[in-house]
Amino acid sequence: MSNANPAKKIINNPLKCADELFEGLVLAYDGKARRVGTRSIVMNDLRPDAPALLVGGGAGHEPIYHGLVGKGMADGAAVGEIFAAPPPDIVLEAAQAVNRGKGVLFLYGNYAGDVMNFDIGAELAADEGINVKTVIIADDVCSAPPTEKHKRRGVAGLVPIVKLAGAAAQTVDTLDELVRIAQKACDNTRTVGVSTKPGSIPATGKPTFELADDVIGLGMGIHGEKGVGLIPMCTADELAAKILDLLFGDDLELKSGDEIVFFVNSLGSTHMMELLILLRGAKPILEARGIKIHQTIVDNIVTCQEMAGVSFSITKLDAELKKLWDLPCESVGYTKL
Amino acid sequence: MSNANPAKKIINNPLKCADELFEGLVLAYDGKARRVGTRSIVMNDLRPDAPALLVGGGAGHEPIYHGLVGKGMADGAAVGEIFAAPPPDIVLEAAQAVNRGKGVLFLYGNYAGDVMNFDIGAELAADEGINVKTVIIADDVCSAPPTEKHKRRGVAGLVPIVKLAGAAAQTVDTLDELVRIAQKACDNTRTVGVSTKPGSIPATGKPTFELADDVIGLGMGIHGEKGVGLIPMCTADELAAKILDLLFGDDLELKSGDEIVFFVNSLGSTHMMELLILLRGAKPILEARGIKIHQTIVDNIVTCQEMAGVSFSITKLDAELKKLWDLPCESVGYTKL
Repeated sequence: MSNANPAKKIINNPLKCADELFEGLVLAYDGKARRVGTRSIVMNDLRPDAPALLVGGGAGHEPIYHGLVGKGMADGAAVGEIFAAPPPDIVLEAAQAVNRGKGVLFLYGNYAGDVMNFDIGAELAADEGINVKTVIIADDVCSAPPTEKHKRRGVAGLVPIVKLAGAAAQTVDTLDELVRIAQKACDNTRTVGVSTKPGSIPATGKPTFELADDVIGLGMGIHGEKGVGLIPMCTADELAAKILDLLFGDDLELKSGDEIVFFVNSLGSTHMMELLILLRGAKPILEARGIKIHQTIVDNIVTCQEMAGVSFSITKLDAELKKLWDLPCESVGYTKL
Repeated sequence: MSNANPAKKIINNPLKCADELFEGLVLAYDGKARRVGTRSIVMNDLRPDAPALLVGGGAGHEPIYHGLVGKGMADGAAVGEIFAAPPPDIVLEAAQAVNRGKGVLFLYGNYAGDVMNFDIGAELAADEGINVKTVIIADDVCSAPPTEKHKRRGVAGLVPIVKLAGAAAQTVDTLDELVRIAQKACDNTRTVGVSTKPGSIPATGKPTFELADDVIGLGMGIHGEKGVGLIPMCTADELAAKILDLLFGDDLELKSGDEIVFFVNSLGSTHMMELLILLRGAKPILEARGIKIHQTIVDNIVTCQEMAGVSFSITKLDAELKKLWDLPCESVGYTKL
């Protein structure tokens, strides 16, 4: 058994992980959400006559994406196979289930497979008379320069973005308003991540990527995608400063007096002890710039199996976004009073 | 650097981890809690003239214990070094800070060092005129037989127990009432955990314990303490059944119609994918017995660095506990609407 499962994953059939975790996820909602079609999850009590918020993506990164379905969060999610975008028919099933006649916003991370499948899903939904608009999350600063934002990946900034869009979906009356706010949340969010160890691929037990023992992958994506380079292992304080330098070097204006949501995310096995030590290193740097943290989040929400590494996400709040931020939300992945 | 930090932990001084993570934890509360004395954390807005709830324990297991401080959760926590009980003077400082003239309940896990230090702290507090009572959490079914409950360790059942006691601390007027409810929460909670891989000791980078590649430590404690034996690696469904067998074999009566909180916890690096697959395996077994899950929790809250493994905790709710459960709470470790 050990050779067949070198990562000692607690699973059943390695090829059925996405389906089985999805069934578990629906159960974790204690009746507040239900399964729809092949592999979509949709909340039961949706506000009538309101525009809908649909998220989605590959499985294996739990609690995102499907764990962000909830009260004041997404209305539903289309779920793919492990590390693979949801097929268009699953996107369509989800869109049909969340639509209440006011249209559906597709809000998801910028990966080629997701863009293709959600776009086809949008066409299929249009054929059924559903008005679909799309906002793509591309918060990963290190995946492309600011002049090529369309090439940037979506990473941990997804969490504050979906929370803000979810709050908007509870309050606005039109799909255009929901699109506007979701786009503003995206425009105001930046993430830089680093990797120290790979996770494992559930079907094979093999590492998701290779990384030498004495280096950190700066800006590396959550599947091991290339970042801005390798740096020697360093202290938490040094790493916090390096990550913030990259964030401040991007094109999101951050000036004294600005209020932000600051999200310190573990990619899986990096322990909360380390996240807290990083937060301790980051806070004085933010304070020295006069930036005020309105809310800190320290958790592992955007993960890739037991991958080690962290990311910092900054979301700048204007008055409108701050009001939306302060609304309560509840989901498997993120809950606030 | 890699030899000095084989686990690639993102830290600064390996001997300062407890102090530094503690400083980060206080920052994570965004002004809702403050540092008190050497290493205690206390909420700022405490209900006047109410009995206080104090938790605590060693660091390195974040978000417990100190991350369970919050609204509707614990009023404060006394924090030790990595994997070591808080010294009595820290316990005293915390007790003084949370006391509002109605006394303080010490609620913590059953480890020899914690019992000794909290007991001395209670004596020191008594010298200062503070009325202290103690309830010890000993939910770990596999650490001793039901006839020797005083030998059982406290593990993940801590989370629902602190949540229930925290809700009680918001509503009752006397320390005796708080003690009664906390004791009932303990009496109604059982946990069984399993380990598949050790975490690492932050100061040395060495594994917290040894475990062969092809076995699971059934009932093993969160620091690698002996359980009921080693079993061959098995499927998630088989493991869910084995864990539930051990829970049902204990002395907590669970009959058809009973309502429970069901908590599936990761000890660190075991991914939420695996927790959800285990939940999928466990739910039909609970349903076949007519047991109703009132609330499911799937998260990594009781951890030991990047240790791999899981635990199931069951808390049986009577009418009083159910009402307390349904109150909202907010903390770094656990939040519900």
